[in-house]
Amino acid sequence: MDAEVFLTHSTISEGDMQGRTVVVIDVLRACSTIVTALDRGARAVMPVLDMAQAGKIASNLDPDVYRLGGERGGEKIDGYHLGNSPREYTPEVVKGRDVILNTTNGTRALEKAKGADHLVAASFLNAGRVVDFVRQTTNAITIVCAGRQNRIALEDTLCAGLLLDRLWDGQEPYPVSDSAHTAYTLYHTDQDDLENALRGANHAERLVQQNYEEDLNYC
Amino acid sequence: MDAEVFLTHSTISEGDMQGRTVVVIDVLRACSTIVTALDRGARAVMPVLDMAQAGKIASNLDPDVYRLGGERGGEKIDGYHLGNSPREYTPEVVKGRDVILNTTNGTRALEKAKGADHLVAASFLNAGRVVDFVRQTTNAITIVCAGRQNRIALEDTLCAGLLLDRLWDGQEPYPVSDSAHTAYTLYHTDQDDLENALRGANHAERLVQQNYEEDLNYC
Repeated sequence: MDAEVFLTHSTISEGDMQGRTVVVIDVLRACSTIVTALDRGARAVMPVLDMAQAGKIASNLDPDVYRLGGERGGEKIDGYHLGNSPREYTPEVVKGRDVILNTTNGTRALEKAKGADHLVAASFLNAGRVVDFVRQTTNAITIVCAGRQNRIALEDTLCAGLLLDRLWDGQEPYPVSDSAHTAYTLYHTDQDDLENALRGANHAERLVQQNYEEDLNYC
Repeated sequence: MDAEVFLTHSTISEGDMQGRTVVVIDVLRACSTIVTALDRGARAVMPVLDMAQAGKIASNLDPDVYRLGGERGGEKIDGYHLGNSPREYTPEVVKGRDVILNTTNGTRALEKAKGADHLVAASFLNAGRVVDFVRQTTNAITIVCAGRQNRIALEDTLCAGLLLDRLWDGQEPYPVSDSAHTAYTLYHTDQDDLENALRGANHAERLVQQNYEEDLNYC
């Protein structure tokens, strides 16, 4: 199974997504948060582009049934119920509710990829389930790493490499796209000490500075 | 020496270049062509953004002193003296002349990076000289891989990894940017069979289809 991989969402266009099964990865933290919220009983998670779109959706819902979540610069948005830490998305808060999620990279990537035939949010938390799902679809697969500030994010690239490793049963195909080769090679180099590699990622260091180290352990 | 690395030029902005020594890499083929033209006695190579800019510069020069070179879709531009194959840039053609070079990725990357303190065009052909030059400057270093169609290009990323390996004396520093770690890791994985890795790059396969296989051997 060949795969197209985008190492940051900033280089995708809608046409790239058509007719494909698209997996959007944002390990730290949007996709980990989405996966957690659904696991804890949220009815739905709606990724949005910006505050205006979030506000518009919220204005059409009963205040009891939704929760606004998201971040700018890594911190909770003023007036929102929740930030972007998956640990905030407990059953008490999200069970039976719709979550409107607004983040800098991950939810924008999901919004830009919405033209896909099938669209999946992935992180290390649900990697096995994502692989099972992708195997069942007949479309070609595109993996979109959200990245950070239009650049590559190591944690997303490593997660893409892990998905490819599973989808390819540990055998890199030939030919392969340059970006898929990159993600697969990085994963193969770092897989024996994945936790350490992830802690060295630039975004991980930033989260530690912002006192979100527990999010790293969780994600 | 820490290094910022951009894996495609599409994500750089002028502000990223200020006060820095910037190395632009386009192995296949713009930077290899520039290096070759200068080595074969060209007086100067002027990278330009598009045909309009190329025409404007040419119109101000004596037709005897300049040569127009460049490609779109890998093929020579209609009416130009030269394409983007470095093998065309022989002493007979370029010695003592100015070359105006117009390509899809490499010269655009150079044009976008012109706000740098020092700007260097790099390929495998002049890697040693580039490393010597960078060591002599006191600025922070940024490596810009031209990439291809806004995406990562394996050959440029491997060349970036080689430069980092030399600049770091084979020891990856800590902390390091995610993109520099990516380029360095790819190079370390593929260095023992670099030629084979380069032949597997998507752009290399495309050049073979276009009957430019000799350019691969040369670059």
